[in-house]
Amino acid sequence: MATHPVVEYTSPSSWALIEDKLSPFAKETLVKLIKFLEDEVWPATRIAHAQLPADPEARWKTVIPVVADLKAKAKKLGLWNLFLSKTHYPQWGVPLTNLEYAVMAELLGRGGQIASESVNCSAPDTGNMEVLARYASPEQQKKWLVPLLNGEIRSAFSMTERFVASSDATNIRTSIRQEGNEIVINGHKWYISGAGDPRCALHLVLGKSDPENSDTYRQQSIVIVPANAPGVKVVRPMGVFGYDDAPEGHCEVIYENVRVPVENLVYGWGKGFEIIQGRLGPGRTHHCMRSIGAAQYALDLMLQRVTDPAKKTFGKYLYEHGTVVADIAKSRAEIESARLLVYSAALQIDKAQAKGALKEIGIAKFVVPSMACGVIDRVIQSYGAEGVSQDTPLAAMWAGQRTLRIADGPDAVHIQQIGQRELKRAVALTKRTAEIKKKERALAEKYNVKAHL
Amino acid sequence: MATHPVVEYTSPSSWALIEDKLSPFAKETLVKLIKFLEDEVWPATRIAHAQLPADPEARWKTVIPVVADLKAKAKKLGLWNLFLSKTHYPQWGVPLTNLEYAVMAELLGRGGQIASESVNCSAPDTGNMEVLARYASPEQQKKWLVPLLNGEIRSAFSMTERFVASSDATNIRTSIRQEGNEIVINGHKWYISGAGDPRCALHLVLGKSDPENSDTYRQQSIVIVPANAPGVKVVRPMGVFGYDDAPEGHCEVIYENVRVPVENLVYGWGKGFEIIQGRLGPGRTHHCMRSIGAAQYALDLMLQRVTDPAKKTFGKYLYEHGTVVADIAKSRAEIESARLLVYSAALQIDKAQAKGALKEIGIAKFVVPSMACGVIDRVIQSYGAEGVSQDTPLAAMWAGQRTLRIADGPDAVHIQQIGQRELKRAVALTKRTAEIKKKERALAEKYNVKAHL
Amino acid sequence: MATHPVVEYTSPSSWALIEDKLSPFAKETLVKLIKFLEDEVWPATRIAHAQLPADPEARWKTVIPVVADLKAKAKKLGLWNLFLSKTHYPQWGVPLTNLEYAVMAELLGRGGQIASESVNCSAPDTGNMEVLARYASPEQQKKWLVPLLNGEIRSAFSMTERFVASSDATNIRTSIRQEGNEIVINGHKWYISGAGDPRCALHLVLGKSDPENSDTYRQQSIVIVPANAPGVKVVRPMGVFGYDDAPEGHCEVIYENVRVPVENLVYGWGKGFEIIQGRLGPGRTHHCMRSIGAAQYALDLMLQRVTDPAKKTFGKYLYEHGTVVADIAKSRAEIESARLLVYSAALQIDKAQAKGALKEIGIAKFVVPSMACGVIDRVIQSYGAEGVSQDTPLAAMWAGQRTLRIADGPDAVHIQQIGQRELKRAVALTKRTAEIKKKERALAEKYNVKAHL
Amino acid sequence: MATHPVVEYTSPSSWALIEDKLSPFAKETLVKLIKFLEDEVWPATRIAHAQLPADPEARWKTVIPVVADLKAKAKKLGLWNLFLSKTHYPQWGVPLTNLEYAVMAELLGRGGQIASESVNCSAPDTGNMEVLARYASPEQQKKWLVPLLNGEIRSAFSMTERFVASSDATNIRTSIRQEGNEIVINGHKWYISGAGDPRCALHLVLGKSDPENSDTYRQQSIVIVPANAPGVKVVRPMGVFGYDDAPEGHCEVIYENVRVPVENLVYGWGKGFEIIQGRLGPGRTHHCMRSIGAAQYALDLMLQRVTDPAKKTFGKYLYEHGTVVADIAKSRAEIESARLLVYSAALQIDKAQAKGALKEIGIAKFVVPSMACGVIDRVIQSYGAEGVSQDTPLAAMWAGQRTLRIADGPDAVHIQQIGQRELKRAVALTKRTAEIKKKERALAEKYNVKAHL
Repeated sequence: MATHPVVEYTSPSSWALIEDKLSPFAKETLVKLIKFLEDEVWPATRIAHAQLPADPEARWKTVIPVVADLKAKAKKLGLWNLFLSKTHYPQWGVPLTNLEYAVMAELLGRGGQIASESVNCSAPDTGNMEVLARYASPEQQKKWLVPLLNGEIRSAFSMTERFVASSDATNIRTSIRQEGNEIVINGHKWYISGAGDPRCALHLVLGKSDPENSDTYRQQSIVIVPANAPGVKVVRPMGVFGYDDAPEGHCEVIYENVRVPVENLVYGWGKGFEIIQGRLGPGRTHHCMRSIGAAQYALDLMLQRVTDPAKKTFGKYLYEHGTVVADIAKSRAEIESARLLVYSAALQIDKAQAKGALKEIGIAKFVVPSMACGVIDRVIQSYGAEGVSQDTPLAAMWAGQRTLRIADGPDAVHIQQIGQRELKRAVALTKRTAEIKKKERALAEKYNVKAHL
Repeated sequence: MATHPVVEYTSPSSWALIEDKLSPFAKETLVKLIKFLEDEVWPATRIAHAQLPADPEARWKTVIPVVADLKAKAKKLGLWNLFLSKTHYPQWGVPLTNLEYAVMAELLGRGGQIASESVNCSAPDTGNMEVLARYASPEQQKKWLVPLLNGEIRSAFSMTERFVASSDATNIRTSIRQEGNEIVINGHKWYISGAGDPRCALHLVLGKSDPENSDTYRQQSIVIVPANAPGVKVVRPMGVFGYDDAPEGHCEVIYENVRVPVENLVYGWGKGFEIIQGRLGPGRTHHCMRSIGAAQYALDLMLQRVTDPAKKTFGKYLYEHGTVVADIAKSRAEIESARLLVYSAALQIDKAQAKGALKEIGIAKFVVPSMACGVIDRVIQSYGAEGVSQDTPLAAMWAGQRTLRIADGPDAVHIQQIGQRELKRAVALTKRTAEIKKKERALAEKYNVKAHL
Repeated sequence: MATHPVVEYTSPSSWALIEDKLSPFAKETLVKLIKFLEDEVWPATRIAHAQLPADPEARWKTVIPVVADLKAKAKKLGLWNLFLSKTHYPQWGVPLTNLEYAVMAELLGRGGQIASESVNCSAPDTGNMEVLARYASPEQQKKWLVPLLNGEIRSAFSMTERFVASSDATNIRTSIRQEGNEIVINGHKWYISGAGDPRCALHLVLGKSDPENSDTYRQQSIVIVPANAPGVKVVRPMGVFGYDDAPEGHCEVIYENVRVPVENLVYGWGKGFEIIQGRLGPGRTHHCMRSIGAAQYALDLMLQRVTDPAKKTFGKYLYEHGTVVADIAKSRAEIESARLLVYSAALQIDKAQAKGALKEIGIAKFVVPSMACGVIDRVIQSYGAEGVSQDTPLAAMWAGQRTLRIADGPDAVHIQQIGQRELKRAVALTKRTAEIKKKERALAEKYNVKAHL
Repeated sequence: MATHPVVEYTSPSSWALIEDKLSPFAKETLVKLIKFLEDEVWPATRIAHAQLPADPEARWKTVIPVVADLKAKAKKLGLWNLFLSKTHYPQWGVPLTNLEYAVMAELLGRGGQIASESVNCSAPDTGNMEVLARYASPEQQKKWLVPLLNGEIRSAFSMTERFVASSDATNIRTSIRQEGNEIVINGHKWYISGAGDPRCALHLVLGKSDPENSDTYRQQSIVIVPANAPGVKVVRPMGVFGYDDAPEGHCEVIYENVRVPVENLVYGWGKGFEIIQGRLGPGRTHHCMRSIGAAQYALDLMLQRVTDPAKKTFGKYLYEHGTVVADIAKSRAEIESARLLVYSAALQIDKAQAKGALKEIGIAKFVVPSMACGVIDRVIQSYGAEGVSQDTPLAAMWAGQRTLRIADGPDAVHIQQIGQRELKRAVALTKRTAEIKKKERALAEKYNVKAHL
């Protein structure tokens, strides 16, 4: 039986588990995507890097030529907006399930951001398109969603605040208030990904519109702010372990008396919390699959390094030294476990929506980036100084994965939520144990057993 | 949609991944098994323990009454020999795949050995029945396999040797040689599981029949030795962290000029290594699933403990202290990962035989018992002194799992094999990288990029 | 420069750090102790084990002959009660500091309990002697302390309760009340170490004498209960991973209307909590040093195993495989770190009493047994099946160390206390940071720097 | 008793262990150093950062003004060249032992590179000054060592090669050959720290002068190359996780037919390997102590963060959530262990030279940077996005520590060496065990014990 080419990038056994859940269309798209990545995207990765100017100003004003060309090709091939599932977004989506896209997302995560951008599947645009597709008015969709879906503009999601522990949404200080037909926004955000990009046309800004509402989850609203609106100040790019991730960047942004028409309110007053909750589910599995792709790619690099005759020391291949083989085996096992875990979470979303998959998504969220950091760290070690340099993607990949342990809620938050969720099982368990004990007592009598029960 | 009751013991998302791969028969059998475990087996666990005498002699001469009764009930219900897949053993097997049995094996692994024995699925009998079903002559099958399948006798697999590193089969010293119509066996084995049981009727003994054969994998043969043959000396039970695991035990056994008819040779001269290789594949996934069941059961106990009002300290529930919630979340994630990993290995065996699933089986073998040890260790900690005592199954479960990191080849052996197997991927990867570089050079020319490539 | 023989059992660099802090007497005693251990104790370890009957009754009625002989020899040599520092107990102690005894305690921890017993330094007697030396009346001392110091009797400390989370002393349920000239004790304890020993003559019993006292730390008292007092019922030995640790054992004990004269009250009504606090400091460092001795001994066994030509597999020494060398290096590093940590805690007790060394003691308490478990676990793995058996001390050593992660307060309690103690440093740190920021602002002005400060 | 102010930055118990080993001069110098750091250096850290231009060219041509001022002040205070011990370098050194400087080095490691540079103790100058002080001719010392000691110039150590696994010195490809009165150097190095600094005046270049020598450790020589010699091309700064570490940098350097007078040969032909071996001992403990300072500083930052009322979430301080307190306790324990380990290694160097302290140095080398990475990683997590940003020193500190797991030999090399060194103990251990067994047999006879011995 001929096997699918994706197996070379994943594993036969994980494929066996999901193969019959993928549609013929998904399988064909996957073949097409692999060919596109091999022929076009991966050869372009370092070209793209070289086309980005070193100058601290110019880096933020550049649309990288090779990436623009890749986008055009991908669109023509129909490899476009693969993340947006028709099941959930009948009007806008492509006929792919979350699970099907999960398999593709892993491939997109191999070696760099440009793969995702090429097929118009890069964060934060993906999440923003989901928000607009689900919650925006037809006018908003026409103005902002359509050009985003076309890859003509880019966008930012403006939530994290400086000076505040904003993982607790009730701490948000940005103010959003109506004045006549306008909405006035004041706030101080940072780590706003994508806000540095010259193509960034809009920010979805979360703020407090009703700070006194007794229901703390109804205090927030989300407003569409054009990136060029007066009062929007992109202060500086924030660093990620020394990287600036230009041209997208993660920027400090101040909104100073920014005014937008009231039509720019998304979904309704007080709907901000509901929107951000809805936004995160599938996106987290996409992130996780890209992390798995990064880890798998790193492991693939390690295999090449440790078998490279030019890197022999003391007459032996690198893999013949110390714990290298064991490190490889552990990495392989960890990647495979994580892949199955996220497949399972993605399928659960397909079956029971994000709400019915909170446990699976949460587990994936705290397990996968840590796993990827660990794997990449071992690979860095096998590359020596080159591993921390700009000459391999490893150090930047590690920094990206490390940041994912903080972004969208730090690990600890997810760990606590999963733990608390598990605790709820205690009631039923205690009841079941009581029933078993009851039967045990009957048996003890029957067999006349008098032990310490 | 009504969900299957097994979900309460595993998870909805792992079930979703495999549900459509299970036959209606398997699903019904699973329902029946759950009911049998809840109603009959789990209430009997501590009864069985209490029925085992404390006396160091009598413990080894006892057939535990409640277990005998459970076996009779299970047989009547058709919950019998579930491990033996009809696909692989058309003559003897039940119509269940490896994956289907894997789900059942997890349940059998919850809390104690008697569940497996009740449904005639306990090691080492399972592996021995597989060997006899595949390699034995019709006469051998009639004499030994049939009563084993009927649960009338038990058996031992006699491989590990004292004084020798027998994980390298070429180190085996036990001698097996033909004299006329007889085979003479001399050797010193230990950790022979099941050899202490009063019902143990046969040992499958591995030894060297052709020690000079230049093919080191053709030096070994396997012989059926009746447990009561003259010269078979069960020296003593070997301990496992202080446990003797009576009445089965893990015994030191000396074979001193034991003579059996030449008909007792299994499969042929020099076939010993081939047989032990074939024996291990599916059995390892069964072991792993039982380990997962043990870990899941331990976690279930932890949930009950940390929510028990009687165990509050300093005015707070145990789960409100320290890292308990995080420990629970991690345990949940680890168990779920491991479960998916072993499902995937079991399915791979169904699709590609044990030979085509060596990587998956090997990964499961070194990942799962370590995982189970870690989870159970956290649970022990949550139970305090009671956790290391005879009053919960935890300490014994831990000892059992710890031993699995040694049995059937220590972790290190599997880790090395998986690592070496991964290394073989390097050739294809290096080739693919070269192709990508070639395209990169073409692109560099096209875009006139002169960076450090 | 001739170096001290202890260096062979520890390390030159740890010795260099403490050498000048040891008195000539301590150094000589150390030499004498090493000789005694090498010549007498270590050769007797397995003899002692063999002299303990297997019979479940007789095991608890035996004084092991070889141990009795060792005690006589040690006493004659002046290797006796080394744990009791004259500094803290001028009337009863030996002229050794805590640090000096710490070095000896490590040696006593190598391979088995009998070393400690031989020199009358075994728990729980050590802690009990400390209690009696510090808090008991002269009459109590004459009756109970003197024979304990002479090694004529043994003792138990009766604190942990069944059915209760007794790591919170306010949960204690055992009742201690005065009736006329008598004290009446009722309670249900377990894991009472030493209560199984035929020589055990007294229990120090902690209970509530004033359960309504608003000061929850004044509710408890401690009473001396003769082991043969009517109403003292030793119910059964509690297991530790399958071990019963006979003849001392860790017993379940019920006190049913036990009556003792009011003179048996220790120190005063309501002094129970104060006594148990004082009891634990130095004892914890002793335990830790013994744990380090156990880990070091295990590592020494590993070195012998992995260089044993009889254990070669596939033509290579065990140390030539996989991660063995790395495991050894890590174990060495971990043991050495732990040793220095406990030396430092012991010295701190000498300088500032147990009260001034709470942080150091607490850290040692949660770091060392975990470290020892980890090291011994690796060694077990290198021994294969033999590692979990009764034929090496490894499995029993591991079980002992694992239990220390629960005894005297579970790890989590110590971790929380140390963490909380560290948090107190935040105030001073925040103040210092503010001062530095102030100077920074002055500098910024001076250099005319306007960056984001 | 008044305690030393260093205790606030380290711990009372580690101080107690070493206090009596420090001279009055060392203790006074330590007081002076602490005051200087508090008053001058730490307030200047971010000023220095701000004074470094962002422009990719200008960054490498800047002498940071505030650092220059700090150097002048430190020199005046006598806080200068503290690393150079008079014991080992009588002509040039300061009267401080390695242990004494170790205590100071920890303080220098708190928060940034400028502390070390301020007191003329920064790598690679420190190692280079040691080399010149020990091996250089008087003329070389006058020309290069004196201005280095005066802090007038800086230097680079040019060993690591691109395209080669240069952790095996026999792989070195750089060629060094004599032509008449000149030495000609050709080679391709990278990660040459300090080569980017505008003050860098010399490179100590390691190359092969005698590649055919059968003694592979005599093939290498070291030559002093003026930084401005024709043919010395500083190609580019190499990155460290996105950082360029300007102005020092870690540069790719090509030596193309560089010619220097034969007088620039250091120590003699074929002495290269000997020199690099001698160079690394004390320097490694200095690095380790700085790493400990970094970790301790990070922990201090964490304590402030988690008690900051502005960072409360869900109504609770950060330290009241999840595993924060446990993380703090573990970090505290790990730092303290590591500190003691390196003190012990430093003292061992003082007592037995670097050669007699190889095991201690090696252990410190692989334990400490990993420990520091782990601690800082936890602290980053507690700072959320700010932790990976340029607004705290954490991310850069982590990157620095991570690189130390590769620099001066990757962890694996040191781990293997320590493991191999431990293995050598097996011979003596096996002999001792045999002696104990012999005595055991005698005892067995005496007591008539016939157990399985």
